[in-house]
Amino acid sequence: MTKIRKILVANRGEIALRVMRSAKEMGIKTVAVYSEADRQALHVRFADEAVCLGGPKSADSYLRGDKIIEVCKQLGVDAIHPGYGFLSENANFAEMVKAAGLIFIGPSPEAITLMGSKLAAKAAVANYNIPMVPGTAEAITDIAAAKKIAANIGFPILIKASAGGGGKGMRIVNDEESFEEQMRTAVSEAISAFGDGAVFIEKYVGSPRHIEIQVLGDTHGNIVHLFERECSIQRRHQKVIEEAPSAILTPEIREAMGKAAVDVAKACSYYGAGTVEFLMDEDKNFYFLEMNTRLQVEHPVTEQITGLDLVKEQIKIAEGEALSFKQEDLKINGHSLELRVYAEDPKNNFLPDIGKLAQYKRPQGLGVRVDDGFEEGMEIPIYYDPMIAKLVTFGKDRQEAIEKMLRAIDEYKITGIETTLPFGKFVLTHEAFISGNFDTKFIERYFTPEVLKEQTKQDEVEIAAALAAMLMDKKKPDVKTNVKASAVATSNWKKNRLN
Amino acid sequence: MTKIRKILVANRGEIALRVMRSAKEMGIKTVAVYSEADRQALHVRFADEAVCLGGPKSADSYLRGDKIIEVCKQLGVDAIHPGYGFLSENANFAEMVKAAGLIFIGPSPEAITLMGSKLAAKAAVANYNIPMVPGTAEAITDIAAAKKIAANIGFPILIKASAGGGGKGMRIVNDEESFEEQMRTAVSEAISAFGDGAVFIEKYVGSPRHIEIQVLGDTHGNIVHLFERECSIQRRHQKVIEEAPSAILTPEIREAMGKAAVDVAKACSYYGAGTVEFLMDEDKNFYFLEMNTRLQVEHPVTEQITGLDLVKEQIKIAEGEALSFKQEDLKINGHSLELRVYAEDPKNNFLPDIGKLAQYKRPQGLGVRVDDGFEEGMEIPIYYDPMIAKLVTFGKDRQEAIEKMLRAIDEYKITGIETTLPFGKFVLTHEAFISGNFDTKFIERYFTPEVLKEQTKQDEVEIAAALAAMLMDKKKPDVKTNVKASAVATSNWKKNRLN
Repeated sequence: MTKIRKILVANRGEIALRVMRSAKEMGIKTVAVYSEADRQALHVRFADEAVCLGGPKSADSYLRGDKIIEVCKQLGVDAIHPGYGFLSENANFAEMVKAAGLIFIGPSPEAITLMGSKLAAKAAVANYNIPMVPGTAEAITDIAAAKKIAANIGFPILIKASAGGGGKGMRIVNDEESFEEQMRTAVSEAISAFGDGAVFIEKYVGSPRHIEIQVLGDTHGNIVHLFERECSIQRRHQKVIEEAPSAILTPEIREAMGKAAVDVAKACSYYGAGTVEFLMDEDKNFYFLEMNTRLQVEHPVTEQITGLDLVKEQIKIAEGEALSFKQEDLKINGHSLELRVYAEDPKNNFLPDIGKLAQYKRPQGLGVRVDDGFEEGMEIPIYYDPMIAKLVTFGKDRQEAIEKMLRAIDEYKITGIETTLPFGKFVLTHEAFISGNFDTKFIERYFTPEVLKEQTKQDEVEIAAALAAMLMDKKKPDVKTNVKASAVATSNWKKNRLN
Repeated sequence: MTKIRKILVANRGEIALRVMRSAKEMGIKTVAVYSEADRQALHVRFADEAVCLGGPKSADSYLRGDKIIEVCKQLGVDAIHPGYGFLSENANFAEMVKAAGLIFIGPSPEAITLMGSKLAAKAAVANYNIPMVPGTAEAITDIAAAKKIAANIGFPILIKASAGGGGKGMRIVNDEESFEEQMRTAVSEAISAFGDGAVFIEKYVGSPRHIEIQVLGDTHGNIVHLFERECSIQRRHQKVIEEAPSAILTPEIREAMGKAAVDVAKACSYYGAGTVEFLMDEDKNFYFLEMNTRLQVEHPVTEQITGLDLVKEQIKIAEGEALSFKQEDLKINGHSLELRVYAEDPKNNFLPDIGKLAQYKRPQGLGVRVDDGFEEGMEIPIYYDPMIAKLVTFGKDRQEAIEKMLRAIDEYKITGIETTLPFGKFVLTHEAFISGNFDTKFIERYFTPEVLKEQTKQDEVEIAAALAAMLMDKKKPDVKTNVKASAVATSNWKKNRLN
């Protein structure tokens, strides 16, 4: 057991601030690192000490593991929290941290390496009865052999680069006839993108849901799961709305997925916080996708329904403490939703809309949590992920969590840039979302920029009606009506654009 | 069952906003009323419609029940939520609302009247076995008879005006010798203050804790309690820090107090949200004090540990719905603290320190809730209660709730006026508070303005040390340290004064 007294957070934005808040509550001092673009950032102001790493590009700052370790030595830091992204899943960095005599608040370098490779991960979990999408267990380059396998699995199938990511070297094949040509293309794409032509072949799950399980393991071999997160609402293959629990899981499926996730973690002797991702098909069959060996962006929804602070759990695990609870102690309590508020224009294909936060007022009140790293007047830097905030709501059930999210979206006031707030309102009022009957194709199926323009038009009609009503009120004796407040409030989410 | 579609909130500040948020989440339209001093207030901007009632004085605005009812008729309002204070415990107003065909979101006028009189309340609960401070059951004016009663109860005793409040007409008598003189003074004070010389005599509980039980009743006769709130930390006989659950209640005492509170509510056929207040002596004997027939300022701590939205429950009860849960469904989950952030100077006897919120930045993050009615640049009006905000924290246990509160106090940035934030820090780091060994005499016993000055001095030493450390760091190659951030962060609560 090592008591951690000073943590350097090797990250920026909301997650840096979020980690520091928990550290501070535990009486642990914090060190921020920052790039030249983040001089005024909130995480820099919050920390006890702050060190500039270099230029605005990530490669010159947040990815400079060597400099970060040097800062730790100079400032007497004893542990590094990597957040998510940047160096969080870099096994070499975790190794360097260890070699420097520092604590890496995360899993072992070995677990990171193992789960970083899709095929190695598959091989590692082979001894456990983890449901997998039917397919090759090993990388393959022989086209004739691959074709036979594909026919056995049954079309449509998916060809995937072993070293892949971001959709590169990935092909969907609908029939036997086009298989050879598509395989050749996939291999050559994989060679040019990753320098490795090995691919594997699996059943293509067409409209899956993305459901993941949060796990926590300690260094004494105890591993538990903290239930699921539903992350099917995605734009450009990236999550934008998450919730816990899922609207469609039965207790039996939840238990089975939880067990599978714990087994995956066991397969790599996992400790720390991690997430096991699954695909789920229309018949609620689930298949192991991959394991993320770090804190997830969407971890707050799990915190809200379990009452646990995941960052504090990570820190205690890194100190060598055993988990203070068993699986049977954990219960789901209520329902939580997260909307990622990005500086993006949903009416323009979700392209980043970087700029200054002319107005920035957060929603408040019971069951609303905003994790962000900005305040009014700040610029959203162009160098990093354009996420402004995570808007999290919590209610006694799914309906209340949705109602709170809609209220909070209306109350959130951001001007100067476009955001995903109106998109969030669209999703949360959509019948498919409300009924729970949706998958990763939600946007493809239901969303066009026109639906937001339609929303805007409706709001304008409401404002006009409100103004007319106000003018009539004016004639009444003794009652003065605040026209502006009323008109704006009538259609509150429009505030962003109007004020 | 009447579905409420439009609510007028007959209040201002944080509670008006808080009520409107819940109404909005239920799809109910909201109407704000405001005084000329509150033109720019957040509740006015939040509401769908807003009506100015008149001049800044309460008597010309928030207490104008007649105007409020007129506004309801003009704007098609079907229910009034009175918040707390102002008209919330005015039985005449509740009667007028009813007579106008509107719904009063609160108890019956009869229950308000009954519990508004100390002696009537005592008489009403006489059939239930409610523990009371030993004393006279009826008002008394005869000095000789009173003296005999006092001797039977045993000194010290308390003489209290029957119509009293705010300490007027109240005398502590330590021995039989001084009884006559004190009684005469009490009666004459009561006559001049309330026009009614009737007093009653009871055992004086010297250093009590103030513990209250939240109850909820519906119009079908169901009444439950939502456990206790500990409200012993008071300044000038007004609560300033509250928590739920209490640090010292055993499950047995909790159950007994809960039952007593439900019985008090039964005694007045109570419906709506109400609070039964008790005194508790050093031996954990509890005594019924009074019932508040409205939502309490400190209701959020109960919401946090039960997962219920008390305003939504009030609205559903007013609509005629039956409670959707039974006593056995309710469980305490975690621990919650509330610090009332007042525009007051704790170094100057907690006198109001009204002015402009030059800087106003709320704390954020997991387990922190701020209910307020202000934003940066606004003035705190001199006309009303100087409460700026309620800072509420929630953790899995008392220790975590305290740690979160200390972190949140440090993160809260208010400049331009003095507040109770530093006082909150003093209490939450005091051994007596941490151990749970405190009562309503906490301030009298432990607090002097000097302790805050001492705190300020320590912070200055820390800042100097941090600056020195920074200057040394400057010499190291490649590592630039952000002096200002670090120095300020080292002693974060001092920010209020420094920036």
